[in-house]
Amino acid sequence: MSEKPHPEETAKRSSRRTHQTAAASKRRITLEQEHEIAAQRGESRPTRRATVPALEEILYAPIPVLDHGFVRVIDYMGDDGAIVQAARVSYGRGTKRVSEDRGLINYLMRHRHTTPFEMCEIKYHVKLPIFVARQWIRHRTANVNEYSARYSILDNEFYIPAPEHLAAQAVTNRQGRGAVIAGEKARRVLDLLREDSERAYAGYAELLNEDEAGAPIDPKWPGLARELARMNLSLNFYTQWYWKIDLYNLMHFLALRADAHAQYEIRAYAEAMLGTMQRWVPLAHAAFLEYRMNGASISATGLQVIRRMLTGEQVEQKDSGLSPREWRELMAVLDPDHK
Amino acid sequence: MSEKPHPEETAKRSSRRTHQTAAASKRRITLEQEHEIAAQRGESRPTRRATVPALEEILYAPIPVLDHGFVRVIDYMGDDGAIVQAARVSYGRGTKRVSEDRGLINYLMRHRHTTPFEMCEIKYHVKLPIFVARQWIRHRTANVNEYSARYSILDNEFYIPAPEHLAAQAVTNRQGRGAVIAGEKARRVLDLLREDSERAYAGYAELLNEDEAGAPIDPKWPGLARELARMNLSLNFYTQWYWKIDLYNLMHFLALRADAHAQYEIRAYAEAMLGTMQRWVPLAHAAFLEYRMNGASISATGLQVIRRMLTGEQVEQKDSGLSPREWRELMAVLDPDHK
Amino acid sequence: MSEKPHPEETAKRSSRRTHQTAAASKRRITLEQEHEIAAQRGESRPTRRATVPALEEILYAPIPVLDHGFVRVIDYMGDDGAIVQAARVSYGRGTKRVSEDRGLINYLMRHRHTTPFEMCEIKYHVKLPIFVARQWIRHRTANVNEYSARYSILDNEFYIPAPEHLAAQAVTNRQGRGAVIAGEKARRVLDLLREDSERAYAGYAELLNEDEAGAPIDPKWPGLARELARMNLSLNFYTQWYWKIDLYNLMHFLALRADAHAQYEIRAYAEAMLGTMQRWVPLAHAAFLEYRMNGASISATGLQVIRRMLTGEQVEQKDSGLSPREWRELMAVLDPDHK
Amino acid sequence: MSEKPHPEETAKRSSRRTHQTAAASKRRITLEQEHEIAAQRGESRPTRRATVPALEEILYAPIPVLDHGFVRVIDYMGDDGAIVQAARVSYGRGTKRVSEDRGLINYLMRHRHTTPFEMCEIKYHVKLPIFVARQWIRHRTANVNEYSARYSILDNEFYIPAPEHLAAQAVTNRQGRGAVIAGEKARRVLDLLREDSERAYAGYAELLNEDEAGAPIDPKWPGLARELARMNLSLNFYTQWYWKIDLYNLMHFLALRADAHAQYEIRAYAEAMLGTMQRWVPLAHAAFLEYRMNGASISATGLQVIRRMLTGEQVEQKDSGLSPREWRELMAVLDPDHK
Repeated sequence: MSEKPHPEETAKRSSRRTHQTAAASKRRITLEQEHEIAAQRGESRPTRRATVPALEEILYAPIPVLDHGFVRVIDYMGDDGAIVQAARVSYGRGTKRVSEDRGLINYLMRHRHTTPFEMCEIKYHVKLPIFVARQWIRHRTANVNEYSARYSILDNEFYIPAPEHLAAQAVTNRQGRGAVIAGEKARRVLDLLREDSERAYAGYAELLNEDEAGAPIDPKWPGLARELARMNLSLNFYTQWYWKIDLYNLMHFLALRADAHAQYEIRAYAEAMLGTMQRWVPLAHAAFLEYRMNGASISATGLQVIRRMLTGEQVEQKDSGLSPREWRELMAVLDPDHK
Repeated sequence: MSEKPHPEETAKRSSRRTHQTAAASKRRITLEQEHEIAAQRGESRPTRRATVPALEEILYAPIPVLDHGFVRVIDYMGDDGAIVQAARVSYGRGTKRVSEDRGLINYLMRHRHTTPFEMCEIKYHVKLPIFVARQWIRHRTANVNEYSARYSILDNEFYIPAPEHLAAQAVTNRQGRGAVIAGEKARRVLDLLREDSERAYAGYAELLNEDEAGAPIDPKWPGLARELARMNLSLNFYTQWYWKIDLYNLMHFLALRADAHAQYEIRAYAEAMLGTMQRWVPLAHAAFLEYRMNGASISATGLQVIRRMLTGEQVEQKDSGLSPREWRELMAVLDPDHK
Repeated sequence: MSEKPHPEETAKRSSRRTHQTAAASKRRITLEQEHEIAAQRGESRPTRRATVPALEEILYAPIPVLDHGFVRVIDYMGDDGAIVQAARVSYGRGTKRVSEDRGLINYLMRHRHTTPFEMCEIKYHVKLPIFVARQWIRHRTANVNEYSARYSILDNEFYIPAPEHLAAQAVTNRQGRGAVIAGEKARRVLDLLREDSERAYAGYAELLNEDEAGAPIDPKWPGLARELARMNLSLNFYTQWYWKIDLYNLMHFLALRADAHAQYEIRAYAEAMLGTMQRWVPLAHAAFLEYRMNGASISATGLQVIRRMLTGEQVEQKDSGLSPREWRELMAVLDPDHK
Repeated sequence: MSEKPHPEETAKRSSRRTHQTAAASKRRITLEQEHEIAAQRGESRPTRRATVPALEEILYAPIPVLDHGFVRVIDYMGDDGAIVQAARVSYGRGTKRVSEDRGLINYLMRHRHTTPFEMCEIKYHVKLPIFVARQWIRHRTANVNEYSARYSILDNEFYIPAPEHLAAQAVTNRQGRGAVIAGEKARRVLDLLREDSERAYAGYAELLNEDEAGAPIDPKWPGLARELARMNLSLNFYTQWYWKIDLYNLMHFLALRADAHAQYEIRAYAEAMLGTMQRWVPLAHAAFLEYRMNGASISATGLQVIRRMLTGEQVEQKDSGLSPREWRELMAVLDPDHK
């Protein structure tokens, strides 16, 4: 076990960088990649497995997210019927009538019978900024294969927020965003982010001893080890991974990351994935919106407040047993103009 | 949340029991189930996903295990190419040339790069005795949906070992089997197992207040709650589940359960599944045999013994640093007539 | 790797069975076990770790559950302060003032920030009927070490429900219990369960070729392999395990198993454990009751119904958008006399 | 659920930054933190739990790693005896005689009986560069609480390799290090890393609109949202987390990360943790070295080669069935001068 060189000695990296610099800076994928995707999309084979035409339609195609990122559905296992089939441990296709399947799926979602939802699986290819990847990876119930900056060289692609997402620090909420920044301030912020990113990449390239075309700058030395050079890159650089997860855990991810309180940048990915879920398992998706995303968890004291109010009692925060913040949250949920 | 009746009010259970009693006692599945399976096997749809014809061939078909059990492949995601594709985080199909893929898969297996193998997933429907299910479920990295004896009624099917698997307790090994039991002793053991199982089921039926046809014995009461009555069944009764796992964790399961030291009854299932793995991902299967199943883990002291022997030294157990048992194990591995 | 006998050749098993038969049939633990426990409880050592005196008080002591079962707290890591400490990634003890800690723990529970709760860990020794163990083990996020009936011999202890828990099958709910069974029916049910259990154990002993004192019945053969003989036991026999889990996953387990819809037999264990949680992390326990156990999850449509009702509108099930069952569930939650 | 401000409105951050800038740049922890740690180390309480004096000795104390990082043991559950206790599912302390415990632990390690090792748990506080954290977090079987740069401000601390760890890219191995870089090249690399890090932090501070003392630079605006500003930092900046793991999974982590092929920077942490493991569970640690770290996994073909060599046959790579690389690896393992 004295050495572990990776056997895949392909030229893929340098060709990608060449394309990258040749193409428009807003390119998410190179022409070569586009061809690979088109080739895959062009193929079709027969299968006895459950298939979902609405999801097949977008299979492999990148859904754009942020300025350079994307989400692509690479593979899937199961459909709404597979949830029913597993819940019944049945011998045939789960589906009987759509209305019956819907009823069972709603029941399972409502009573948090989670195991039948685990019987569906989906695989994504995601391109995302490193600081988003760091939030994302906290979800430990998925399988991940990340592009290795120990082994390969990262492209010169970094995230710069669109002007409408350039928000000031919230004053009342230490982990939130406040007003959008505009004008001169915005220009300065964007310039600073861009300049520092460019400088970081220039430093990275110098450390690696590679010019834009992938040729050595100083032909007499091999450059700093890739595993070290990467530390010069900032957290807005893009990475990529294959990410595979079952439907139950995907819903848990989406419930947290498609939520209004999630950081915008990860929410953008979650929303794209919510769309793919709707194509894939429309009955489970509808149940998920009804019982999770658009429902609410009310505390014991909150329920007591509602019960009192329903008897006609005027309840004030002070005699509610709720803290001011919990009171505000509850009143927002009960607001007739909610949403 | 005041009541949780399950909405699926189907007649499936009683029809299954009727068939069961009508059919030969060795039936694994009913005629109705056979038709459901045949219907699924008869369908075919186009897909853009990776497919594996050798696995499609046996999809849904029960592979017999023990006297009433089976394993059926219900669904799968990915193939050998998907391992390569994830390892490269590539845009197109992973596969380039088979020889290159084989080299990369061998490399990944040898160096325990586990994440690319997690990118393949397989789903089984398994019918198995409860005592086997109890060993099996210790593997926590899979998704499981078990037939609910709280909600439904178990069939009158129990495992009786075939004569050649009726083994005495090993004398030297507290958790192993010794010689096969034959003659009068064997007859007595099998009779006892069968009689006690039949009596257990008769008690179960009486507690449920159901006769063989599913009709109440005493029409004036509903019978003992199913969730209680099941406790009268013995551990050799059959249960069923849907079981879904990724390839990496499947290999871990197979390495333990297809091993010669695993209890015969679970090994029988593992061997059937090893066959399905060979159809599904032949390159990964070959690498698994070479680097895991048929390889060996040698301790630091064991390696030292081998090194000394290779220099021509005569090493004895006493001066080897190994315990007598470890010495025997090492000598068995090094035996030129091994296997 | 040709043989795997377990090295622990102790006499513990036979001595336990001797005690067992000598002692009253209701014994949960033998005198020998009592002495081992007392010895452990008698020892005390200094530690720099966080300690919880209220939990130390009951450490190792069996809490009786069902007729022969128990739960014992064997070890724990962390306290309420450890939750706070992890949430703050702090250098010192998390605790500042109890009121501040309570506020933070409530906040974390309310907003489902789960990771700080994972920083506390608890280990139990549990003795439980096999059919309960089968439900329990579905929770895959714990560590388990079960008593091995492949290696050792199970005691002659089986669960017989107390008369007040002997319930008929629910008529409206396929997985629930109906009225308690009394009189002659009850006697018959209990007799049947007891007789079949005794017969199952007698068969087990004969298969093992061991009499009550642990001596061979027929000295000329070693008995059936233990791993096979165990299949003759029924699902109400007791097994044991060490079970270790973090606080977050413990709460998930308790939310499902201490719930009114859980089967009584597992709920009895969950309730005993809820008591140990109260001793261990009183602030987290209070938050758990307020936000999880005694709160409710309301669907999007359910919230809409509440909003309409709060404006004074008379809402009927028919125009609520809820199914009859969901309507009943919601009305039960909103009932001013709830609980 | 309309707002989620975090309730902990402490002044901790700014005081830390003030100390930081006041203290020598090589400080790992502030004086305030030192006092918090000393206070915790000064306390002692009685417990009935298993304790490990050798580990208590270093409890809470930071073990320095890299230029600004550390590992601190914060808590632990169990000892060598707890492994034995769980393997036996015993009522008292597991330990009988050390020699017996050692034998059982060696047996469990040799035959990969993993569950008893899961019964011990350890919790660390780790300060580490972000690029190391990104490798580390791939181990999904631990509990993690990371310092939040969404909520708080990161300190001005970044990793700069020591001269002896400044390695060039390996020529033969795409993911390894080659020769150490010295002289002018080394100076240039270190200058570039330092300058870019300082510039990244200056940009971060400007985006946050905070000067070194934590005061606003421009008092008229709140600065860019923290969750956005952090993206300007590079991957060598330090983060921190609480990390909790069971002994089995810790060994898996150490087997991969204390290995000679792991990147030096994460190996430095793994080696520090291996030392804490030796204090904590000396028997398990010795077994781990013997059967895992210093042992080897030999492939089926590799075993065949050894068997042939032991019969005196001269085996060459060409007729060995091994690839040149596998052959070299095997020969290295069998080298009498190995290590």
